[in-house]
Amino acid sequence: MTATTVLQNDTQPITPDAVRRAVAAQRGLAERLFATLAAGSPGNPGIMRDTYGAGENFGHEVFRAEARAAGLAIMTDAAANTYATWRGTQADAPAILMGSHLDSVPHGGNFDGAAGVVAGLVTIAALRALGVRPRCDLTVMGVRAEESVWFQVSYIGSRSALGTLPDGALEARRIDTGRCLADHMRDCGGDPDALRRGVRSLDPARVRAFLEVHIEQAPSLVEAGFPIAVCTGIPGNFRYPNARIRGRHDHVGTPRRFRRDAAMAGMALAHALDEIWAAHEARGTQIAVTFGRFHTDAAVHGLTTVPGDFHFSLDVRAYDEAVLAEIEAQMHLAIGRIEAERRVTFELGQRAGAAVGPVDAAIAAALAAGADRLGIGAMPLGSPASHDAAAFAAAGVPVAMLFVRNEHGSHNPREAMEIEDFMDAASVLALWVSENAGDAASAG
Amino acid sequence: MTATTVLQNDTQPITPDAVRRAVAAQRGLAERLFATLAAGSPGNPGIMRDTYGAGENFGHEVFRAEARAAGLAIMTDAAANTYATWRGTQADAPAILMGSHLDSVPHGGNFDGAAGVVAGLVTIAALRALGVRPRCDLTVMGVRAEESVWFQVSYIGSRSALGTLPDGALEARRIDTGRCLADHMRDCGGDPDALRRGVRSLDPARVRAFLEVHIEQAPSLVEAGFPIAVCTGIPGNFRYPNARIRGRHDHVGTPRRFRRDAAMAGMALAHALDEIWAAHEARGTQIAVTFGRFHTDAAVHGLTTVPGDFHFSLDVRAYDEAVLAEIEAQMHLAIGRIEAERRVTFELGQRAGAAVGPVDAAIAAALAAGADRLGIGAMPLGSPASHDAAAFAAAGVPVAMLFVRNEHGSHNPREAMEIEDFMDAASVLALWVSENAGDAASAG
Repeated sequence: MTATTVLQNDTQPITPDAVRRAVAAQRGLAERLFATLAAGSPGNPGIMRDTYGAGENFGHEVFRAEARAAGLAIMTDAAANTYATWRGTQADAPAILMGSHLDSVPHGGNFDGAAGVVAGLVTIAALRALGVRPRCDLTVMGVRAEESVWFQVSYIGSRSALGTLPDGALEARRIDTGRCLADHMRDCGGDPDALRRGVRSLDPARVRAFLEVHIEQAPSLVEAGFPIAVCTGIPGNFRYPNARIRGRHDHVGTPRRFRRDAAMAGMALAHALDEIWAAHEARGTQIAVTFGRFHTDAAVHGLTTVPGDFHFSLDVRAYDEAVLAEIEAQMHLAIGRIEAERRVTFELGQRAGAAVGPVDAAIAAALAAGADRLGIGAMPLGSPASHDAAAFAAAGVPVAMLFVRNEHGSHNPREAMEIEDFMDAASVLALWVSENAGDAASAG
Repeated sequence: MTATTVLQNDTQPITPDAVRRAVAAQRGLAERLFATLAAGSPGNPGIMRDTYGAGENFGHEVFRAEARAAGLAIMTDAAANTYATWRGTQADAPAILMGSHLDSVPHGGNFDGAAGVVAGLVTIAALRALGVRPRCDLTVMGVRAEESVWFQVSYIGSRSALGTLPDGALEARRIDTGRCLADHMRDCGGDPDALRRGVRSLDPARVRAFLEVHIEQAPSLVEAGFPIAVCTGIPGNFRYPNARIRGRHDHVGTPRRFRRDAAMAGMALAHALDEIWAAHEARGTQIAVTFGRFHTDAAVHGLTTVPGDFHFSLDVRAYDEAVLAEIEAQMHLAIGRIEAERRVTFELGQRAGAAVGPVDAAIAAALAAGADRLGIGAMPLGSPASHDAAAFAAAGVPVAMLFVRNEHGSHNPREAMEIEDFMDAASVLALWVSENAGDAASAG
């Protein structure tokens, strides 16, 4: 397989400029889809497309309705992922998948996830307008349940599709409803029993590539002045979603030597990991440490009580498995020291983790070259965030990602994306797809 | 005035041993009062005698009923403090006040505060049984609203009685009901308008001493193996009951240089004050630092969101005003540094403070000597906690305190006091009162 053959329509070669114009003509489609999604999933503030709930279902309905109107073949799998396919001319050619997730965090932004699905639809619409006849299937996948905040499990939709969902995940409970993933999935038209039997909807060997357009979750592109970036890698992580420190509630005047202050113990762990982070930064190793929840117990805390109970969540991410393992070992050492010094007990609770996700070097290089040919400024960027692409990479599928500039970060209501930047990403995607949907694509 | 004249009953001198036996005979009274208080103010878990609410009112009802049954004169003042008085033979002799508060923190213990009121009732009952005729009034005061967690104001009851309640305090709102102190006070039979007019119920010049028995709020006595301690001083404090840090919510993958992590800023402040504390400890200066509330915002926090908002309360206490001022200055320096380094904003909110409370050296020495004469082990101890006695000291009243051993600290449901230790404190109190209720006390 090469990346050099440009698909042809009846009359003329498809140039980068032609792709760019064809994509630009779909700007109205993109704007309409984003507006429809935002209007139907308000988060007050922000966006609320809750995983396996009404918000995410709404996202899939919008996607299906658009795909239906475009005459694409629609399929739903056992995890209630949605696939919209433009059939290729050769049924046995491995498919190109484009897509991302359609859920959001509570009070999240409109583009996180959804941009990847819209980019896929825009690409197909543009290539059809150009008269392209793909040899392989071009499939847009609306992935379920990427936002792990809901079930505290990563990549539920993509791993279900690939048959790599870990044991026990279907029993995970949604943090707000308390109901298990299997029940939520069933409510959304899924078939968790099929997943338990080992049914998978995607055979990695039958997927040529998974291509995910996603907004950047930090302002690196704003800082550097580029509209898009080509992903160089997806971080792995280890997580403790529900950790707790048990100390002892004491009077506010209790001398230091008697205290078992759980909040100060939490402070000490955060301080230790913050120091580790600063040291990695200083030597140029990118990691990130987040205590997303970090709190005394609201039921009993007060101005004049030494906290006897403290809760936190922890996410540590890096691009190198060895770095992750080193930090986790350092964390356990710090906990042992803090427990002894501060007379508290840590209960880390269930551990979760995601492997580092390598991107396909050839596709990434082709995307960068394509951006250059299109006259679009693109920089290489290690993904700050986890993405479904990592689950595909772990299953052996070649993956690549394009990031779109976003001034205010994601997972918050202030997330911001310029439609021009999005159209740049879609152009680079469409060019690559047009040149890789089959090296023997026929004229129309 | 001297501390050498033992009051006499009709027939014999009152020896330390006679006082001890007379106090011991009131053990049933003490046990009954503690049991009644606990049964009527459950906190599930612990005790709930909410300030100017049903729980505190119940405490005052129990106190009044007991005082009424004992034939004491009952008075309630404009702040709804309760006074029960055994009249002395000379109306112009400055009164001896014994007492403490009858409120508790939520989920507090049964003895914190109440022990001082019960000790006063036990002392009067014992001295009456001995046939004592006091020259001055002996008054037990059930103080309102000592627990500042409710209105975030210290010493409301005692400062109201002494006419030293600060401006604006009557407008403070109870943290749970949201209603102001004046309204709560009125509901409990108080007259906040009288307080606004400057009415006070106690003239410091007419009070010989305020004597407060209180459980120790730390296990220093357990550690040292003494049943009671004589207080050497009451700490002052500065407080920020409702402080906040504003940063920015960001995606969990956001690189360090872009973050404005409010929780990590909270960590950094707690770390700075913890280091200051450790340094003071190392050179033998007793202070205490408590972040009682220390928490991300439960409405928006989550595993995959960098916290953009953080809340905390802070209480810093010491026995030296200069030390307090130095620490507060260091805190402001640390905040400036953290704001710059972590791109956040601190909003400290309203500041509260209490002055350091010196105890009367002569009374403290007499109490220590009295314990020795009674054969009761007593050690000197700086109070770890704030107490109403500090408000009396600030108003110029000679104050002293006795602490009772308590294994598990206070402000928590596990607070524990042995009745034998309490009776020891009551004996020391009763001996001092018997010897100071008037140096010209007449035989009966």
